[in-house]
Amino acid sequence: MDDKQISTPVSLHEIKIKDQFWQKLMELIRTKVIPYQWEALNDRIEGAEPSHCIKNFKIAAGLEKGIFEGHVFQDSDFAKWIEAVGYSLMWHEDQLLEKIADEAIDIVCAAQQADGYLDTYYILNGLDKRWTNLRDNHELYCLGHMIEGAISYYQATGKDKLLKAMIRYVDYVDTVLGPEEGKKHGYPGHEEIELALVKLYEITHDEKYLKLAKYFIDERGKDPLYFKEEGKRYGNKFPWEDSFFQYKYYQADRPLRSQQEAEGHAVRATYLYSGMTDIARLTKDEELYAVCRRIWDNMTQRQMYITGSIGASAYGESFTYDYDLPNDTVYGETCASIGAVFFARRMLDISPEAQYADVIEKELFNGILSGMSMDGKKFFYVNPLEVVPEASEKDQLRRHVQVERQKWFGCACCPPNIARLFAALGSYIYSGKGNILLMHLYIGGELTHKFDNEEVTFTIKTNYPWDEDVNIMVSLAGSKNFTYALRIPGWCKTYEIKINEETVNAQIINGYVYLQREWKSGDAIHLHFAMPVEVMQANPRVREDIGKVAVMRGPLVYCLEEADNGPDLHRIYLSDTPMFHVQYEPELLDGVVTITSNGKMLDESSWGENLYQSYRSPVWQVKKLKWIPYYAWSNRIPGEMTVWIKS
Amino acid sequence: MDDKQISTPVSLHEIKIKDQFWQKLMELIRTKVIPYQWEALNDRIEGAEPSHCIKNFKIAAGLEKGIFEGHVFQDSDFAKWIEAVGYSLMWHEDQLLEKIADEAIDIVCAAQQADGYLDTYYILNGLDKRWTNLRDNHELYCLGHMIEGAISYYQATGKDKLLKAMIRYVDYVDTVLGPEEGKKHGYPGHEEIELALVKLYEITHDEKYLKLAKYFIDERGKDPLYFKEEGKRYGNKFPWEDSFFQYKYYQADRPLRSQQEAEGHAVRATYLYSGMTDIARLTKDEELYAVCRRIWDNMTQRQMYITGSIGASAYGESFTYDYDLPNDTVYGETCASIGAVFFARRMLDISPEAQYADVIEKELFNGILSGMSMDGKKFFYVNPLEVVPEASEKDQLRRHVQVERQKWFGCACCPPNIARLFAALGSYIYSGKGNILLMHLYIGGELTHKFDNEEVTFTIKTNYPWDEDVNIMVSLAGSKNFTYALRIPGWCKTYEIKINEETVNAQIINGYVYLQREWKSGDAIHLHFAMPVEVMQANPRVREDIGKVAVMRGPLVYCLEEADNGPDLHRIYLSDTPMFHVQYEPELLDGVVTITSNGKMLDESSWGENLYQSYRSPVWQVKKLKWIPYYAWSNRIPGEMTVWIKS
Repeated sequence: MDDKQISTPVSLHEIKIKDQFWQKLMELIRTKVIPYQWEALNDRIEGAEPSHCIKNFKIAAGLEKGIFEGHVFQDSDFAKWIEAVGYSLMWHEDQLLEKIADEAIDIVCAAQQADGYLDTYYILNGLDKRWTNLRDNHELYCLGHMIEGAISYYQATGKDKLLKAMIRYVDYVDTVLGPEEGKKHGYPGHEEIELALVKLYEITHDEKYLKLAKYFIDERGKDPLYFKEEGKRYGNKFPWEDSFFQYKYYQADRPLRSQQEAEGHAVRATYLYSGMTDIARLTKDEELYAVCRRIWDNMTQRQMYITGSIGASAYGESFTYDYDLPNDTVYGETCASIGAVFFARRMLDISPEAQYADVIEKELFNGILSGMSMDGKKFFYVNPLEVVPEASEKDQLRRHVQVERQKWFGCACCPPNIARLFAALGSYIYSGKGNILLMHLYIGGELTHKFDNEEVTFTIKTNYPWDEDVNIMVSLAGSKNFTYALRIPGWCKTYEIKINEETVNAQIINGYVYLQREWKSGDAIHLHFAMPVEVMQANPRVREDIGKVAVMRGPLVYCLEEADNGPDLHRIYLSDTPMFHVQYEPELLDGVVTITSNGKMLDESSWGENLYQSYRSPVWQVKKLKWIPYYAWSNRIPGEMTVWIKS
Repeated sequence: MDDKQISTPVSLHEIKIKDQFWQKLMELIRTKVIPYQWEALNDRIEGAEPSHCIKNFKIAAGLEKGIFEGHVFQDSDFAKWIEAVGYSLMWHEDQLLEKIADEAIDIVCAAQQADGYLDTYYILNGLDKRWTNLRDNHELYCLGHMIEGAISYYQATGKDKLLKAMIRYVDYVDTVLGPEEGKKHGYPGHEEIELALVKLYEITHDEKYLKLAKYFIDERGKDPLYFKEEGKRYGNKFPWEDSFFQYKYYQADRPLRSQQEAEGHAVRATYLYSGMTDIARLTKDEELYAVCRRIWDNMTQRQMYITGSIGASAYGESFTYDYDLPNDTVYGETCASIGAVFFARRMLDISPEAQYADVIEKELFNGILSGMSMDGKKFFYVNPLEVVPEASEKDQLRRHVQVERQKWFGCACCPPNIARLFAALGSYIYSGKGNILLMHLYIGGELTHKFDNEEVTFTIKTNYPWDEDVNIMVSLAGSKNFTYALRIPGWCKTYEIKINEETVNAQIINGYVYLQREWKSGDAIHLHFAMPVEVMQANPRVREDIGKVAVMRGPLVYCLEEADNGPDLHRIYLSDTPMFHVQYEPELLDGVVTITSNGKMLDESSWGENLYQSYRSPVWQVKKLKWIPYYAWSNRIPGEMTVWIKS
């Protein structure tokens, strides 16, 4: 890795998002989703499965009577929520929300034990049992999320009560786990703490946390396998005993450095790869970085849906194998797409290549955004590319494929994960690297950034992804020599860059155009990204997509819904000579650009009741097709949906 | 139903099969499969899961010490085996086999209790618990098979020890179950006894058995549901508690007379429908017969694979819903295809329509025959239409799809079921109806049949299904007026019938040509069925087959195997102008007609590592395709296989 290439995300404090597409979503997160989720954490959503999360903390703190309920990782729901609260407060003050959060933190911290331990499952089920099932009982996973939440809230408010509590907890953990004699040589079954420890190191500069994170990465999957020894010692039932998974589910079937592919549970995997990338960067570990690149290539070039979804199988919510991308039985968990963003962001930090930001953009606009309904109250765990309601009802292989988003889940990892991701959206727009500012995402708003202590304000105006133009105004006292680098999206074939009305012909390096000059206040950059409708196809190694096409415009993947096209979408073919018409419909689905095109539908009326017959040429009906952005599907009447259609 | 249409299968005693295609199979069943299975029942097959079957009987009889092992329905393995033995002895004496069978029967009968009860699971686990879980514990299922086995062996040998034991058992059951007060109002969770009781009625003419069978049919699914009440009373755990199946799995979600579709576990379903058809016939129940026809139509016109396989889903080994026929995740259990033959045979008995015999033929040559390896030693439980070894290994949804047949299963329903079906093959060839003899299947051999006590011998010579000709020689003393009816197979578009060299232009009624005349010895019927290669397509309502074709010749479905065509079969398309070449290859797969044709293969070499790209016209490689009969797949090196290819 090239030290000179390493960049750093620009702080959320420097950024104000004012964007037609994203701002309403962030407002929704702030005003609806975060308060709704607080109600959910307190079991006050009628008709939704209770979370038990806050109640568990109250019982653990001695504030209420009762027993632990919910999943073993239920504490993490609070952690992701408080993380989202922190990001949200960074861009919008909210005294009431802050008061609620402070009170919640008081409850949580009241549950902390004398030695620093804080996990309600074991506090309520017996502290003597803690650290006896690192493989399946999520203690370190919850701690990781709690660290992330504490840091976010501290950065937003300066209040360090939760952060200090978490530092106490981690300092205690550091006495329990590690390579030294007398410590347990374990690591988490569900990764997450690795990247959290790195965050903690980055704000405390205490090497201890980096060391512990690196230990978890290095120890994972080594022979003799800790999980096996632990399982034997404590008599833990192994959930994958009779499965082909075994320890692959946990990315622990072999040491990380010898792993070749994205494998096992996709959320665990991406969280691990994120932490691994952090460690590679901070410890200058070239070998580990090569593993990150290899797994990145495998994940994005062989195991990722066109929507960015990953994890092809519901079994173990997992990666399967190269080019296995079924559209109808897909898992594609929203959290896994979020994990892919974390991984991408960290790869981008090491090396500014557009491929990483391309994946971030793809996930934000497609695989992740589809995870939440437009009113912010319902969520998809699974993000299918093809849905037939009858199949979801009557075929066990597709029972996990929901036709409508659900209110809240017993295992509610996705909703608060979406909230914390979008609340921190600003942090994905830019990276800084000395006198270079890299712009990854085209999102309207303001950035105030310092180059050598000289403050420059950038005002971005755009109606991306609906319109093709982005305008950037530079404002500063006097002038300053610096580089403004712009990502040319991977989907974009034709673009134009102008500075002060003059076309710029700059070289592209790894997908970025670097504009270096003596910038003056009033300088204006104008970007034009041509957004024709693109008919896409998949690598012929993808069995499920042979003979099919998908439609994209800009970063958005489109789909056909029954609401616009009637049922039996599987009989629809794109025309051999497709003509597309693009239109912004302000009243539809909160305002979307729709696409219409000519198509044809395989006639079935000429068939009788025969199931099979000798071949005869197909009979076609003319069919007008209407496409909507994939993320917006299932916000009207429930019905069929497909991303890929035959051609 | 029309009484005058009802016909009866011709007895196995009248038939001698001498057929190039089937005889070697029947010899295999007799000389290899039946002895092999005897070894299996006695746990003497190295590397195969032990059956425990005979051991359980020995322990129950007090001949050995031990506990019950194996599935709750393990007794039925013996029952199906002895049934196969009976059929086999009917066409070929075998003193050694008969001696083994007699000794086995001695062991089995020694386990019978004083009251007639004979089920080793409850004998060894506590007789107080019998009849407490009709839903899931298979007592009546085992009894049904034992009755069938006893009848077969009695018909073959005249020995009635087992038959008498079973009559004692049934007479006892008749005191336990039934509509009368004081009896349990239950019925079997796994149907089978209904059709067995009918067989018992037909040889004993004791109305009691018919009445009990009819009771099981009439009571099934009535409200309040016996299974629910029983489950509550005895605290039985309900396996489908959290499933969408509930009692549909057992075809017991509502009374049979209101059922519309083939539903639930496919083997249970077809066994039930067989018994139901028997009852409709014997009790002249038009309402019930209408249910049989409705379910038959649904099963064959909406839920059957082109190979005859049924039961699209591994979950519950079950039917799913109309036109849901995935080729790669199919279950298609061999036993379910066998059950479909039983159902078809009974529908044919009521009404001589070629559609029923067409299904029998389709199953025999495809979905059932594929269930056994050519050496008779390995078996498929699941009969897929598309196999990719990597998917079977790494995708949980296809783990049940085996690439190679297995030696023996812990749940070994299919192997002995295949044995008993093929051993009784002769009984599917003809039906008699007064002075009419219906010929359903074109199998070489001899039939000696009486018309008004006048014996006529028919000698059938054919190399069907490889060749297109069938010759039938009539031999009798003097002359006799009768009707010889010939089925014109549903797959056949062009045929010719000659009697003594003269072409006959007879009318087809429901798929049969009725040849009535004064037959004289030496009369010869010559049939010619044109067998061009047929390119087949599926109803466009079948999502999984749109844009695909299959290849058939005569009754045989063909497939592409990796052994002949290399890997990546999913990238193969049939040529737009296909030309077929047919060749008999005596050395290949015990002698098969293979088909070669022109095709094309989607090129992937021009793709780099990109997973998605903008559409460009496909690049094709010329590809010569070689097809083998589907039943013969997986008898060489393991690899990919597909029935449907793109076109």
